[in-house]
Amino acid sequence: MMLITTLIVVSALTIIYNTAHDPLSASVGFAILGGAVTWKLVLEFKESFIKANLIGRDLAKVDKPIIPESTGVICAAIYLLCIFLFIPFPFMEWFTGKGIISRSEEFHAPTFPHHKLGEFLSAMLSLQSMTFLGFADDVFDIKWRYKLLLPAIASIPLLMVYYVNFGVTHIVVPIPLRFIFGRIIDLGFLYYVYMGMMAIFCTNSINILAGINGVEIGQSLIIACSIAINDFLFLNGADPAMEVHLFSLYFILPFIGVSLGLIIHNWYPSSVFVGDTYCYFAGMTFAVVGILSHFSKTILLFFIPQIFNFIYSCPQLFKLIDCPRHRLPRFNPSTLKLEYSKVKVQKPLKPSAHFVLKIFVSFGLAETNEVENSIEINNFTLMNLLLLRFGPLHEKTLTILIMVLQILASCLAFIIRYRLVHFFYEG
Amino acid sequence: MMLITTLIVVSALTIIYNTAHDPLSASVGFAILGGAVTWKLVLEFKESFIKANLIGRDLAKVDKPIIPESTGVICAAIYLLCIFLFIPFPFMEWFTGKGIISRSEEFHAPTFPHHKLGEFLSAMLSLQSMTFLGFADDVFDIKWRYKLLLPAIASIPLLMVYYVNFGVTHIVVPIPLRFIFGRIIDLGFLYYVYMGMMAIFCTNSINILAGINGVEIGQSLIIACSIAINDFLFLNGADPAMEVHLFSLYFILPFIGVSLGLIIHNWYPSSVFVGDTYCYFAGMTFAVVGILSHFSKTILLFFIPQIFNFIYSCPQLFKLIDCPRHRLPRFNPSTLKLEYSKVKVQKPLKPSAHFVLKIFVSFGLAETNEVENSIEINNFTLMNLLLLRFGPLHEKTLTILIMVLQILASCLAFIIRYRLVHFFYEG
Repeated sequence: MMLITTLIVVSALTIIYNTAHDPLSASVGFAILGGAVTWKLVLEFKESFIKANLIGRDLAKVDKPIIPESTGVICAAIYLLCIFLFIPFPFMEWFTGKGIISRSEEFHAPTFPHHKLGEFLSAMLSLQSMTFLGFADDVFDIKWRYKLLLPAIASIPLLMVYYVNFGVTHIVVPIPLRFIFGRIIDLGFLYYVYMGMMAIFCTNSINILAGINGVEIGQSLIIACSIAINDFLFLNGADPAMEVHLFSLYFILPFIGVSLGLIIHNWYPSSVFVGDTYCYFAGMTFAVVGILSHFSKTILLFFIPQIFNFIYSCPQLFKLIDCPRHRLPRFNPSTLKLEYSKVKVQKPLKPSAHFVLKIFVSFGLAETNEVENSIEINNFTLMNLLLLRFGPLHEKTLTILIMVLQILASCLAFIIRYRLVHFFYEG
Repeated sequence: MMLITTLIVVSALTIIYNTAHDPLSASVGFAILGGAVTWKLVLEFKESFIKANLIGRDLAKVDKPIIPESTGVICAAIYLLCIFLFIPFPFMEWFTGKGIISRSEEFHAPTFPHHKLGEFLSAMLSLQSMTFLGFADDVFDIKWRYKLLLPAIASIPLLMVYYVNFGVTHIVVPIPLRFIFGRIIDLGFLYYVYMGMMAIFCTNSINILAGINGVEIGQSLIIACSIAINDFLFLNGADPAMEVHLFSLYFILPFIGVSLGLIIHNWYPSSVFVGDTYCYFAGMTFAVVGILSHFSKTILLFFIPQIFNFIYSCPQLFKLIDCPRHRLPRFNPSTLKLEYSKVKVQKPLKPSAHFVLKIFVSFGLAETNEVENSIEINNFTLMNLLLLRFGPLHEKTLTILIMVLQILASCLAFIIRYRLVHFFYEG
């Protein structure tokens, strides 16, 4: 095992060293390096997490073992380190003397692309802030109202750099809506609110589709791969969007690397949990890439399952129907399978709750069961819905099912983005 | 108390709002705001730290109370948030439309000073990395060899921005040495090594002059005030160095604010400990300011007590003489005073140890006591030395004594920098 790791690390370093002139290949090298180091360090640091009392119980196992929690922080830290070390590569011509850095006169062309470096730095700053906040959340259990706001604060540097580098705040209106809004609307300040909301959504939506072995990294990996595939579609030299998609790849490839390194330990049966840290880190990576590479709408298409899960959860999140502290599927020790969990609501229901429930039942999204003075309803999460429709499933099967769903959603996203787009936008 | 906090916060916000055109005043506003919020949040979060098992025992008290540890993380997080929110102020003319941001053509003058923004972002990134690492150290107890390297890694973004913005790597040789080296030496790559070492030194040297109530913040506050005073000396409009000193003040003033907010709780008798997090955060703030404002030598002058403490500790740090895990002064419950702690070394001593000890004794830096087959020697730290020279002291007196020493060192630093400098440099 030691030999294999060494081989992987050596080959990664070889790639980085030999392709210093080609940042994309160097990025692949860092992805491999990050993955191998994550895999190794998680093994090594497991004990430290238990000593530091960062632990959780795996309730979906017969013996409910105690497992290190929030190891996502290792994966995020290695990711950040990889990007730290990677930053010089896209600017290599200025470091090897081919490009001329004019320091005496401010902004004398051709000089160093400070604005590009600013994008990297602000992206890193936002990512690091979110990782830090995620870790603080794992250690201190931060209150919900703070949790919702923190990603918006963490994205301030990002939005500032967006303002000075791009400043584009208008959107092209889809054809069917043009008779109302015209061809272009300038959202102005609201566009920044939209981007802040996007950071909040990406981070929290992964955090609420979580809780069974491997599901946090599983979904993130598929979203990341979808983004990477989408980026590769733009990588022929002629495309004007090539530069932003390269930028996106520089951030997504190492993310895929470190996530693969961590999922080895987090796959069923998990020997470590990834914690809120990983969910926040993953969500913020997607938000950063979406904002700075300017394809946030495409990224939101890859979040279809998360968007569904969020909308479906709303009646409980907004307390229309009681929301227990945990809504995870229930483990049945006799069948070794997961079953959907239920919430007991006192009768009579509020009229609004009654209305929502009626709609959900008619669409097959809810099942009710009257018990004396109360009604038992399935908790409104995607995982419970799958268990309701497919019957009890093994934990691993459920994770794979969600990943398959995520892949189908990505296929749908690509169809919308590249086929159906003609109904909404010209050319 | 609530009323006073509210008043302070409101007046800070008023300052920030009314002086948006004057970044220095806005910075003062953020310093006040940061201080008040730190003071309040530390109070509020104390319980969370105990719940999260981030605790330490105050061994220099009769009842050895359990106290929340590493609350420096609150202070650092608020500091970072203040700087996040402050970043737009120095660039206000570009946000209010007075300056023109040219986005269509790259680097078309007059345009946005991306390189200045890059300095802020890289400084924040290095500070945040170091805070994160400090907190990780408090939670996980990171090994010494990593601790030493981490500040160097955290300073990568800083050094990169230094390279592209300044790139100055030559130093002017002091007059008495010019007959060997000439007037100017270009250190080239070594200059970056020097800056990395400076980050390592600043963070760790505060961390080893620590362990009694209020001493970590006490010394940091005096260093910070010295830097601020030095900056103010350059603030007449004509001085070409004015810009870098303004930059320094933007980082130092909020640091002074949040540190004051924290020291209220950390002063004797401490109700919270600040942890490695604070020491790393403080040290990195000084390193960042020194590197980007290009007066690292002046900053090192303010570190005279820390430099002395480090050199004095070397025989123990490098295992010439045994180094027990803790070298803090010993609390004597009968006198309620601190006494210097000792280490017992087996005879015969290594010749090198014997040599060092002889020198130390002759300079009054060590006292030995022969017991059977071994020698008892005072631990080589500044605190133990003070207790050796002045006799047992109350904990608070010792902290104040170190702060006085730090003030004297700053006076000496100013004399060297502004009076004796003529012996070393012309003009």
